[in-house]
Amino acid sequence: MKKTITFGELLVRLNAPDHRRFIQSTSFEVHYGGSEANVALSLRKFGVDASFVSRLPDNEIAESALSFLHQHGVDTEATLFGGSRMGLYYLEKGALLRASKVIYDRAHSSFSELKPGMINWKAILKDAHHFHWSGITPALSYSLAAVCEEALKVASDMGILVSVDLNFRANLWKYGKRPSEVMPQLLAYCDVVLGGKDDSELILGIPVEKDEDLKSVFKKWKIRFPKLKSIASTVRNEATASGYLWQGVLWQNERLYTSSQYALTNIVDRVGAGDAYMAGIVYGLLQHSEDAQRTVDFATAAASLKHTIPGDVNLASLNEVLNVMKGDNGGRILR
Amino acid sequence: MKKTITFGELLVRLNAPDHRRFIQSTSFEVHYGGSEANVALSLRKFGVDASFVSRLPDNEIAESALSFLHQHGVDTEATLFGGSRMGLYYLEKGALLRASKVIYDRAHSSFSELKPGMINWKAILKDAHHFHWSGITPALSYSLAAVCEEALKVASDMGILVSVDLNFRANLWKYGKRPSEVMPQLLAYCDVVLGGKDDSELILGIPVEKDEDLKSVFKKWKIRFPKLKSIASTVRNEATASGYLWQGVLWQNERLYTSSQYALTNIVDRVGAGDAYMAGIVYGLLQHSEDAQRTVDFATAAASLKHTIPGDVNLASLNEVLNVMKGDNGGRILR
Amino acid sequence: MKKTITFGELLVRLNAPDHRRFIQSTSFEVHYGGSEANVALSLRKFGVDASFVSRLPDNEIAESALSFLHQHGVDTEATLFGGSRMGLYYLEKGALLRASKVIYDRAHSSFSELKPGMINWKAILKDAHHFHWSGITPALSYSLAAVCEEALKVASDMGILVSVDLNFRANLWKYGKRPSEVMPQLLAYCDVVLGGKDDSELILGIPVEKDEDLKSVFKKWKIRFPKLKSIASTVRNEATASGYLWQGVLWQNERLYTSSQYALTNIVDRVGAGDAYMAGIVYGLLQHSEDAQRTVDFATAAASLKHTIPGDVNLASLNEVLNVMKGDNGGRILR
Amino acid sequence: MKKTITFGELLVRLNAPDHRRFIQSTSFEVHYGGSEANVALSLRKFGVDASFVSRLPDNEIAESALSFLHQHGVDTEATLFGGSRMGLYYLEKGALLRASKVIYDRAHSSFSELKPGMINWKAILKDAHHFHWSGITPALSYSLAAVCEEALKVASDMGILVSVDLNFRANLWKYGKRPSEVMPQLLAYCDVVLGGKDDSELILGIPVEKDEDLKSVFKKWKIRFPKLKSIASTVRNEATASGYLWQGVLWQNERLYTSSQYALTNIVDRVGAGDAYMAGIVYGLLQHSEDAQRTVDFATAAASLKHTIPGDVNLASLNEVLNVMKGDNGGRILR
Amino acid sequence: MKKTITFGELLVRLNAPDHRRFIQSTSFEVHYGGSEANVALSLRKFGVDASFVSRLPDNEIAESALSFLHQHGVDTEATLFGGSRMGLYYLEKGALLRASKVIYDRAHSSFSELKPGMINWKAILKDAHHFHWSGITPALSYSLAAVCEEALKVASDMGILVSVDLNFRANLWKYGKRPSEVMPQLLAYCDVVLGGKDDSELILGIPVEKDEDLKSVFKKWKIRFPKLKSIASTVRNEATASGYLWQGVLWQNERLYTSSQYALTNIVDRVGAGDAYMAGIVYGLLQHSEDAQRTVDFATAAASLKHTIPGDVNLASLNEVLNVMKGDNGGRILR
Amino acid sequence: MKKTITFGELLVRLNAPDHRRFIQSTSFEVHYGGSEANVALSLRKFGVDASFVSRLPDNEIAESALSFLHQHGVDTEATLFGGSRMGLYYLEKGALLRASKVIYDRAHSSFSELKPGMINWKAILKDAHHFHWSGITPALSYSLAAVCEEALKVASDMGILVSVDLNFRANLWKYGKRPSEVMPQLLAYCDVVLGGKDDSELILGIPVEKDEDLKSVFKKWKIRFPKLKSIASTVRNEATASGYLWQGVLWQNERLYTSSQYALTNIVDRVGAGDAYMAGIVYGLLQHSEDAQRTVDFATAAASLKHTIPGDVNLASLNEVLNVMKGDNGGRILR
Repeated sequence: MKKTITFGELLVRLNAPDHRRFIQSTSFEVHYGGSEANVALSLRKFGVDASFVSRLPDNEIAESALSFLHQHGVDTEATLFGGSRMGLYYLEKGALLRASKVIYDRAHSSFSELKPGMINWKAILKDAHHFHWSGITPALSYSLAAVCEEALKVASDMGILVSVDLNFRANLWKYGKRPSEVMPQLLAYCDVVLGGKDDSELILGIPVEKDEDLKSVFKKWKIRFPKLKSIASTVRNEATASGYLWQGVLWQNERLYTSSQYALTNIVDRVGAGDAYMAGIVYGLLQHSEDAQRTVDFATAAASLKHTIPGDVNLASLNEVLNVMKGDNGGRILR
Repeated sequence: MKKTITFGELLVRLNAPDHRRFIQSTSFEVHYGGSEANVALSLRKFGVDASFVSRLPDNEIAESALSFLHQHGVDTEATLFGGSRMGLYYLEKGALLRASKVIYDRAHSSFSELKPGMINWKAILKDAHHFHWSGITPALSYSLAAVCEEALKVASDMGILVSVDLNFRANLWKYGKRPSEVMPQLLAYCDVVLGGKDDSELILGIPVEKDEDLKSVFKKWKIRFPKLKSIASTVRNEATASGYLWQGVLWQNERLYTSSQYALTNIVDRVGAGDAYMAGIVYGLLQHSEDAQRTVDFATAAASLKHTIPGDVNLASLNEVLNVMKGDNGGRILR
Repeated sequence: MKKTITFGELLVRLNAPDHRRFIQSTSFEVHYGGSEANVALSLRKFGVDASFVSRLPDNEIAESALSFLHQHGVDTEATLFGGSRMGLYYLEKGALLRASKVIYDRAHSSFSELKPGMINWKAILKDAHHFHWSGITPALSYSLAAVCEEALKVASDMGILVSVDLNFRANLWKYGKRPSEVMPQLLAYCDVVLGGKDDSELILGIPVEKDEDLKSVFKKWKIRFPKLKSIASTVRNEATASGYLWQGVLWQNERLYTSSQYALTNIVDRVGAGDAYMAGIVYGLLQHSEDAQRTVDFATAAASLKHTIPGDVNLASLNEVLNVMKGDNGGRILR
Repeated sequence: MKKTITFGELLVRLNAPDHRRFIQSTSFEVHYGGSEANVALSLRKFGVDASFVSRLPDNEIAESALSFLHQHGVDTEATLFGGSRMGLYYLEKGALLRASKVIYDRAHSSFSELKPGMINWKAILKDAHHFHWSGITPALSYSLAAVCEEALKVASDMGILVSVDLNFRANLWKYGKRPSEVMPQLLAYCDVVLGGKDDSELILGIPVEKDEDLKSVFKKWKIRFPKLKSIASTVRNEATASGYLWQGVLWQNERLYTSSQYALTNIVDRVGAGDAYMAGIVYGLLQHSEDAQRTVDFATAAASLKHTIPGDVNLASLNEVLNVMKGDNGGRILR
Repeated sequence: MKKTITFGELLVRLNAPDHRRFIQSTSFEVHYGGSEANVALSLRKFGVDASFVSRLPDNEIAESALSFLHQHGVDTEATLFGGSRMGLYYLEKGALLRASKVIYDRAHSSFSELKPGMINWKAILKDAHHFHWSGITPALSYSLAAVCEEALKVASDMGILVSVDLNFRANLWKYGKRPSEVMPQLLAYCDVVLGGKDDSELILGIPVEKDEDLKSVFKKWKIRFPKLKSIASTVRNEATASGYLWQGVLWQNERLYTSSQYALTNIVDRVGAGDAYMAGIVYGLLQHSEDAQRTVDFATAAASLKHTIPGDVNLASLNEVLNVMKGDNGGRILR
Repeated sequence: MKKTITFGELLVRLNAPDHRRFIQSTSFEVHYGGSEANVALSLRKFGVDASFVSRLPDNEIAESALSFLHQHGVDTEATLFGGSRMGLYYLEKGALLRASKVIYDRAHSSFSELKPGMINWKAILKDAHHFHWSGITPALSYSLAAVCEEALKVASDMGILVSVDLNFRANLWKYGKRPSEVMPQLLAYCDVVLGGKDDSELILGIPVEKDEDLKSVFKKWKIRFPKLKSIASTVRNEATASGYLWQGVLWQNERLYTSSQYALTNIVDRVGAGDAYMAGIVYGLLQHSEDAQRTVDFATAAASLKHTIPGDVNLASLNEVLNVMKGDNGGRILR
């Protein structure tokens, strides 16, 4: 069994129930998630041996968050305890023309106070086949960017497959650095990236033309970051808060592979769809790295299923994803 | 800040949860609302100083209903206490081909027993820029029709903008008068009306041809009620209980302005959409009375948002409506 | 008033709430239902005098299940008590590409242990106009197939209209017989059958060509089972777990009658839609047996309404079905 | 099997969930009940054939209320339809020092508009062994008092056991008559009455001394109403909203029988406890009319169980009551 | 009408529902509260004109928190907006031997960043009769201690009644000062204090003997802080998480007044009981400052009622408190 | 860290919510548990390395049940998959005089079909310090009794501490053997037993006198089963479904040790209290086997805490138990 390590922040999600607004809510649903934990958990559901590394306060809320990962079989042995709070976010689920709204409350979290030297990356990455991080982590503090580099160096030296989701959040990056001052040197260690055209100049510092097509953009990325083997992206069209058309894209071996397009018309929960896609890409690369078409098809089917599952995490099994790939559109009751 | 006064009945709404039928329900969701209170509250969300005038029994249910208005900043200082019950309605929310069903239980309410002379309209309307009422109130009793006229005379004398939603309900109007015997003399005081072609003969006593277009119908209304400056209407097409196409129309300065059409495919709660539209029209007239296109666009965007919010009231903010007008279709998570 | 008797198993349904997966659920919604009980209850809602015959354990769960039938007016006087458990099934409601999932736990139920001779069919069927069973019952055990035959002989002798829903479930039929070894001799007693092309060889032992049209297939059925007067079927297209196009078909008097097609885009609960359709066909045959077009239109409208109602049973009234037939698409709030 | 008929109003109960105040509630639990319906249903649970007679509007809320009675096996064939609303009450469940609070909203109900001549008492009471009514009904209107007398005459003529619960409610009796002007002539027809010392002068017009003991008071009642055979009463001590000591009393054959006293310390729902007690008294009289001690013990055990069951109705079975009488205090899990 | 101003932090409370542990919860109930806001709201329920001053972030969670105060009529005009987060706490409600557990997450809140000079105390306290603060505020930061002093000087100069709840929380006071280094100079401005023997040395720096009685302790407080007129305290005995004996104490005019003792056996929610008691003391002093016995009786009755109400706030009305004082123990349903 | 292995059946528990009866419930709460799994999980919470061995069907309900154990850190590596169903039980939680009611539906479960030879006990028990089983398992089938003996022999040979909870259930033992024909030979392998006087003759075949005291009874057990080192028991007094007095007893070294008595007056959930006690006894023996007083005090405190926690399992931590032992009665909010 392949082994993956993901590194990032685990958050409490508090969402208004049904389609209530915050001001109408007398209770919040509680979910636990975070971009990198979501990737670990989704890979675990596909049969990958998954570990998650983070830092959390030593209290019962963090214990509950970890127990959610344990419930689904993700190892958290290497997670550190310290600091005083878990990051959290409030979520109001939109509908139709009313967009979903996230209010972050993650500053000063235990994770955001991680410092270089705290984590023994050599021990953690021993025996791993894959390491995943995201652009959210270096967005939180300068020292977290340094922790990322620490990890990336070790992973790179060990020859482990490294993936990153650029995951730009305008409301983060508040410590005085622009993404393009921090991210490029971290990207240099990566084999796989999930991003889009908008990220090119903003995050990677690579200018693009207004009408430049994806293939050309990703070619530039490859030139700038020669270690990159696969560049994944997603396309959403005719989007409202209730539905859209969704398609996956994967640039590999100088070619652009695209999945078929799914009409996601009655979305249950779209938070974490990108993470589900990321996990699908990684799974494909770990299982059949050269079949890029199969990888993008798998990842897109996986992410489409995520839209039907409450919470941040894609609790779809490997077989369920394979069935969607085979054309099962959910129209039959399985019994 | 502009100041609005609305006058009408505040009701308890008891709806079966989710899509359950009444007979399947062991609990009812409780919301408070009423056509005119909904207009007040929506205007308050847009930043207008709003007061609501009504009559309620002196009990904890009425206290709870008022506290909902206070929660959202609507003043109810002028509301009277007396009588013995709050009107209420039971609601079963439909889906697809199954229409939503309302069972009214509002006869003998404290409001329905209001008599002329009970309310000091001069004091209440002092400093107001706008007064709103609806055709529901004179439908309840003859003496309520007289109270409406009382208010309208004062408002008219003070030069306040007066709006009315014709709001025909076949199950009301049970005291022996037909709408067309009562409403025309009240309409004469109004500057703005929300209605449709079906209301013309039934409520206003103005016959229309079967194929007569809206512009021609509203021209007749203007001739009959010369004080009318703006006539608003809405158009729904391909309607089921779960979705439809929705468009706003505004007749002003001899012209018919139409908004773009919204495909409302996953309706959360459509009760009060007309009130949300009415509030949008009034807001437009108060802010930029001459820009009829902007008014109808604003009102339609506002009403479209109402379809995504549980309860009777449009809890959308001014910015949210403006964003929809600018083309934000809700497809992005705001974070 | 016409009188119907249906015979089959009554099950506990435990479904994960909203769109949660089993593993995410801390509670299950409880519904009671079963193919033949659903038909009885739906007919009762249409005004037919309905009785349900089954066997249940003597405990409070069975008492609760029966009380649900009593709540809706179905008589269960003839139901026997004995054995040790109620059959049950777990249901995870899908969405979009994620199919709904049923886990059966019905083996060893009180019903499955029914033996010939236990039920006094002559007494039960006295005064009845109609008897309904389904292919689920003989799928459970060989002795249940014998009980079915017992009942069918009596019903047939009495000249009662007999209907059957073939209702093939691959996970049943585990006692060593293939459907085609058991069902044909039971079908010989039936006047009305609900089934489809796939059932022809598998259940009835009548081979069909790959491209053979329904009319030709049903003609063969008629030849093989000359007592058959009506053959009903349904067609679903562009199906996901959230929506599909649905159409009813009825073969009668050598002709194929089709209903208009309904776009069921926001399904609330599709379990029991086939039973709702069956009840609609039976109702049509009992009321106006020669007007096949009206029968298939009624049944399709009825089944379409079922998709909007939580639980296994079509709690739509006769008037509601008639309104849908008249073209009311649910777009207006009834008040 | 004995047969009972009870007559009265069926109400919707809307209660704030848990211990929330009205103003804190976004949903209300829905229960259906009413003093006389509660008695019918409790007797049905004990195995008595029970019918309930009332008048209700022809809408889905009334249909739901009736379906609750049908669910538990109470016949409502004789209930009339007409009028426009169901009576209802709002309930806030107290705790400790905070008393439970009821807000009645039952004026103008379909039941309150019943008139003499509407009900065919001879047909309804045929074959009955027992008829029950309560002091709530004549408190609603003068014509309802006349309907009561109508029924009582027929029942009395037929020699049926007649019981009444005095059930004084200060907030009713608003039509201009005092209870003592109306009730005595109705009491004259009764065999069994549930009441207390406070009712003596207020309702029956029989003055009592301040320190007069119950035995003496009930002696006076017997003298004034010679048809009375049994007078039941209950005693509560050290009462808060969460618990009290509860004891039953029964005056019969010139003697006062008292049950043992139950410490009801964690009350789940006390509404309807008096009705549960009434049903217990009637059951005792129907089964073993001369064993007054057994009757009062049975009734007190029954009413004690009611305090553990949500809603207005005592859903305890005969065996459960008998077990409590035998000293089973609920301390063992039954498995 | 008297006018009160309270100053402090408004928090989000997230509590596990029923008696679930955090790790068992898939949703949290949401309440808004805070010691000083609770006092304001309780006084408002008693008919006092109440304003609450604080600092909150400019987001929808803070808007929801404020709307809760508006719902109950508390003015928040003077509350400032700024900073980035609301303080919050997680609550697990205990039972019996399992204590309730609070996890604070309030560091770095908008309130904790308040600085002297930000609030215009002269304008805010104009026309006020009373100002309330608590020991929680100076526990959060040194600059908040300074803001308290700022306010206290103004209030003191204006001759307004000043009250304080010492409210020691061991988990706060983390900025390097001990309570006894900060609190005494603030106490010097106060007329009324709520505290206990344990606070004497820890907070006020006044040593006490182990067996010293309350009267003697409070005498020392009066000597040290001569402005003090009233010292309130509460006594709990035989306490578990489900119940205890509760009694109020008030030292005034050199005498110790004690209330009767309430057996609170089925506690619904005890959070905020101290605030309810504080509000009761203040109400007594505002209404009848010399009748100390009445004041302590009122406050104890008020706080006892708080134990029956979910959330942090005592939503009991003036009449409800007065009824408890009169001996109404909640044993009768009010109807 | 000590390591424990427990062996038994894992069940689905479906309980009516709050204090609803089955017939009133539209949903059931879902918990997973079973006597031996509960012991494993409780020991895990105390810091013991715990594994659970069982047999489950290969479906999503069993996956959910296992994921609950994983969530809390119990290893289930050795659990087998096969068979077709999970055992389940329905639970109605009583109150006061109404006893809680369990309806078992566990026949034909995957576990009940376990056969000797299926489990590799030597591998499983390697490195273990403790093995636990209960009398429920041999009650299910004769072959399960044989599986127990298989395990016990291996455990005994390895010198592992063996504990058993006699756990008599009258509704089991249906395969033709009496407990006393099966249990004694299994008891012979055990070091620790939880049982009571009633079990002596019924299960162990050791007659007792009616008034024989526990010490004498347990002496006889020791004589009959010389390997026994510790005999644990519990005493409940003044029991209703809502509360009782609870005390632990431990016979060890010829002496009877008793804990202090806890008044458990507001029980949240008592299912699994015996398992919590068993886990406490085992924990005591593993940590400080000779301090019997401390063991019984620990176990009783642990079991008392269980009564406050929803579900079958004692989710109390080691520290929480130790605090109760130290006299913390839950009266203070921990913050």
